Amino acid sequence: MIDVYAFATPNSVKVPIALEELGLAYDLKPVNVRKGEQKDAAFVALNVNAKVPVLVDDALVLTESAAILVYLAEKTGKLLPSDGEGRARVFEQLFFHASALSPAFGNAGFFKRSSPEPQPIAEARFSGEADRILGLLEDKLANQAFMAGDDFTIADIAHFGWLWRRQFPAVTLDERSNLSRWYETVAARPAVERAIARIEALVPAA
Amino acid sequence: MIDVYAFATPNSVKVPIALEELGLAYDLKPVNVRKGEQKDAAFVALNVNAKVPVLVDDALVLTESAAILVYLAEKTGKLLPSDGEGRARVFEQLFFHASALSPAFGNAGFFKRSSPEPQPIAEARFSGEADRILGLLEDKLANQAFMAGDDFTIADIAHFGWLWRRQFPAVTLDERSNLSRWYETVAARPAVERAIARIEALVPAA
Repeated sequence: MIDVYAFATPNSVKVPIALEELGLAYDLKPVNVRKGEQKDAAFVALNVNAKVPVLVDDALVLTESAAILVYLAEKTGKLLPSDGEGRARVFEQLFFHASALSPAFGNAGFFKRSSPEPQPIAEARFSGEADRILGLLEDKLANQAFMAGDDFTIADIAHFGWLWRRQFPAVTLDERSNLSRWYETVAARPAVERAIARIEALVPAA
Repeated sequence: MIDVYAFATPNSVKVPIALEELGLAYDLKPVNVRKGEQKDAAFVALNVNAKVPVLVDDALVLTESAAILVYLAEKTGKLLPSDGEGRARVFEQLFFHASALSPAFGNAGFFKRSSPEPQPIAEARFSGEADRILGLLEDKLANQAFMAGDDFTIADIAHFGWLWRRQFPAVTLDERSNLSRWYETVAARPAVERAIARIEALVPAA
């Protein structure tokens, strides 16, 4: 059985989306990051980095959402080409997501919403970078249906996680018709709808 | 023939290190980022993201240093276990590097050195995060020789790239004996010495 420690966060949602797409059964274990539960000793024993998601597949305890996506794709032989340029393009997008989009979105949101005092240069730096990255993806999707080519892959799942939570960095898909089309296409996949419903159900009613 | 567009940067150096370790011949093509050459039209035609490194292997043009490391490891069947927990641990470290260490180091350096005005909260945020990350790696290396286990892998090459340039974020390995031992071990590998010599030779004499 697969357990996923998660909450309704941009990185967490990627894992149930992959599991639903792959048809693998799993239990979601809520870690309420709004209450700081990711810093509890029991959770830090699973992930010293104190972040969700964490996947537990029998004896394997694995962190880093994109590493989990690669693991699940290779376990099943789906959502990641086994060789050739298509495979290289998936890794290129996974690392572009991890190193560029994800920190830009996360830091843009922090400096817009959570910084104890305004840091205008920092806010402009990360908001501008988030905007630049969306422009690159918009251009890419002018010529292909999905992030790594013609097929839906784990690269789409990675980018979708943060775009699903784009309200935090206050970025928009308005005026970006290719990205909007891609987002609606991914969001309408039954597996994605099921994963979002399950991950949103982890949040206690107010 | 393999061409690598690169400069003496934390992400660039990873690629010649991997190529030297794997015994693959390559030409280095300098892109002087101090002069902004990564924004020249000829280079942006290779990488719309305007960043080094870029690998060109016959018809394949590949960006993102860690995606290049995965590509080269899989092309040769070396420096990345083909399955099992060892493989998962390499990807876990590659994505931890890309999403955590690399942006923390890069932004810590920016706010220490390059911001047009002081942004003390931003500087403390990224310097603190860089320090926290080094602490996690120091603890990890108490129980294993290399970043993903007992063997040298592309995860070590990824982390080495930024630790080689740790002067930019002004972090230190002093008082971190495990990380210091690891760094010296990696730096002393003949392939790593050759790669560093070749990448440093790209910088024009002042």
